[in-house]
Amino acid sequence: MLQEKEVQVIINQSINNLNYPLEPDGLYEPIKYILSLGGKRLRPVFALLACNLFSEEVSLAIEPAIGLEIFHNFTLLHDDIMDKAKIRRGHATVHCKWCDNVAILSGDAMQIDAYRHIGQAPERQLKKILNLFSQTAMEVCEGQQYDMDFERRNDVSLVEYIEMIRLKTAVLLACSLKIGAWIGGADEVDAQLLYDFGINLGLAFQLQDDLLDVYGDADKFGKNIGGDILCNKKTFLLISALRRAEGAVKVELEYWLTAEESSSIDKIAAVTQIYNKLNVKKLCQKEMDGYYHKALAALNALRCAGSSTKEIRNFSNKLMHRES
Amino acid sequence: MLQEKEVQVIINQSINNLNYPLEPDGLYEPIKYILSLGGKRLRPVFALLACNLFSEEVSLAIEPAIGLEIFHNFTLLHDDIMDKAKIRRGHATVHCKWCDNVAILSGDAMQIDAYRHIGQAPERQLKKILNLFSQTAMEVCEGQQYDMDFERRNDVSLVEYIEMIRLKTAVLLACSLKIGAWIGGADEVDAQLLYDFGINLGLAFQLQDDLLDVYGDADKFGKNIGGDILCNKKTFLLISALRRAEGAVKVELEYWLTAEESSSIDKIAAVTQIYNKLNVKKLCQKEMDGYYHKALAALNALRCAGSSTKEIRNFSNKLMHRES
Repeated sequence: MLQEKEVQVIINQSINNLNYPLEPDGLYEPIKYILSLGGKRLRPVFALLACNLFSEEVSLAIEPAIGLEIFHNFTLLHDDIMDKAKIRRGHATVHCKWCDNVAILSGDAMQIDAYRHIGQAPERQLKKILNLFSQTAMEVCEGQQYDMDFERRNDVSLVEYIEMIRLKTAVLLACSLKIGAWIGGADEVDAQLLYDFGINLGLAFQLQDDLLDVYGDADKFGKNIGGDILCNKKTFLLISALRRAEGAVKVELEYWLTAEESSSIDKIAAVTQIYNKLNVKKLCQKEMDGYYHKALAALNALRCAGSSTKEIRNFSNKLMHRES
Repeated sequence: MLQEKEVQVIINQSINNLNYPLEPDGLYEPIKYILSLGGKRLRPVFALLACNLFSEEVSLAIEPAIGLEIFHNFTLLHDDIMDKAKIRRGHATVHCKWCDNVAILSGDAMQIDAYRHIGQAPERQLKKILNLFSQTAMEVCEGQQYDMDFERRNDVSLVEYIEMIRLKTAVLLACSLKIGAWIGGADEVDAQLLYDFGINLGLAFQLQDDLLDVYGDADKFGKNIGGDILCNKKTFLLISALRRAEGAVKVELEYWLTAEESSSIDKIAAVTQIYNKLNVKKLCQKEMDGYYHKALAALNALRCAGSSTKEIRNFSNKLMHRES
């Protein structure tokens, strides 16, 4: 049984060993740059841990796992253009360090590169892995589209929000687990349970992210605190606040959502205070815990349940208590 | 033996029957829009014609062929953002009709959709088809990067230019022919000859495109005439003119390449006149004819050569005498 730390080493070594051509450097430098910024490598780590539940041999899952990480980084790269984000993992985003065109094109190349790695899955399972990955990748695009649509709407419901983050965040985590499980030799029942685990953990993870964006520590978070507030992102916190606010608090919240000439610092401070007044932090934590427990229930239902899921369990627990 | 016209009907029906979800419409409407604008459908038509050289049954090649057309349209969509192009096939480009963010994301979704269709290739051949497609798609990105790099350089050689259009245009045509041939049951020798045919036809096709951009008829071309001149695109014409120009003509050409406040009409007229003076149109036509004849030689070397290549031959001939 591999430990999560050992899996991290395998993944990071594989990423460091990726051998991109030198030219054209405008295409390949940004890819090397974003992949070098680190990150939690959640998707490939979960893919290998899931594979390892069913097989001692995880080497067949490494290439697809790297493909999943490259795809994830591609989505960050393009999302950062769309969101005009300046910082990612404590460093300048690709479109800021280079320009929009370079970010668009090197992102496109990363998507192809992701498929190139996924395409190295065992040939016997290639078709079904490819189909799941393509379906998942399309769902991630749908999630990003809904996320952008929601910025222009003030009537987003919590149900719509959860569906959006399921698409944007949870399905890729779930897909990574299922692909790893398949390659390890899991049957469809266990593969689906790991998919369900991934969906619920992904939802919990994103709600945690929403909380960190407001209540996190800027030095540890790697992004600016309050970014979601500044762009009126319809997070669980804002949607809950919009539903709960009444009277003067409602007027104040609506003022900040439309205020165009206010300072960033003022807006972040004011909206955070409204969140505190309305107790939406606790609401979000409760929702998050609910999904986390659903995730663990799926894990417990695995036929290989027991001590062998310890690594996945510990890693998930660490994620739910993270600061970045 | 299917006629090219019949193949066009199969392709267009398949594209019309593509069934995208209704929501999120910001993601799927631009995809439906760009695919509805028509175009020559070169890649899927060549894929099916190549398949038909070796097999009466072309239905197995239809899905991958559609994937190749979707990928091509994805590249147009993203290239148009990068080039700030306003018109494509006589209509507003996606980023003008919607916005950059919508164009970025719906392009990303098209790339996934392309893979989804390529992934429907016969399972027995899936791995090699997928590998060729991914390699090709990456080369297309490299070509686009070189094309952008060349805009900021005045020392691009003809060799570099030909390599750039090989990557940006020719390889996808060649890949389409090879995938079609493989699915039809061609051996590696014939599949490679069709690839070589595609490379050379693609080079000739792009040189024709360069000529049409300057000497075409705006109503028929579907894009504005002189677009390449306005953005100093290093086409075969401009590179040849830069090499041939001397004395006052050289000074004049360099003036127009750096003139920032001139009117578009003046610049197009002036640069076209310089091209005429330097006879670069004839030079480009000669180069184009050379590649076209190389393409036909590859076709003649096929073991199934003779009457069965008539449709591919006629279609290529039509392309080399097109007005748009």
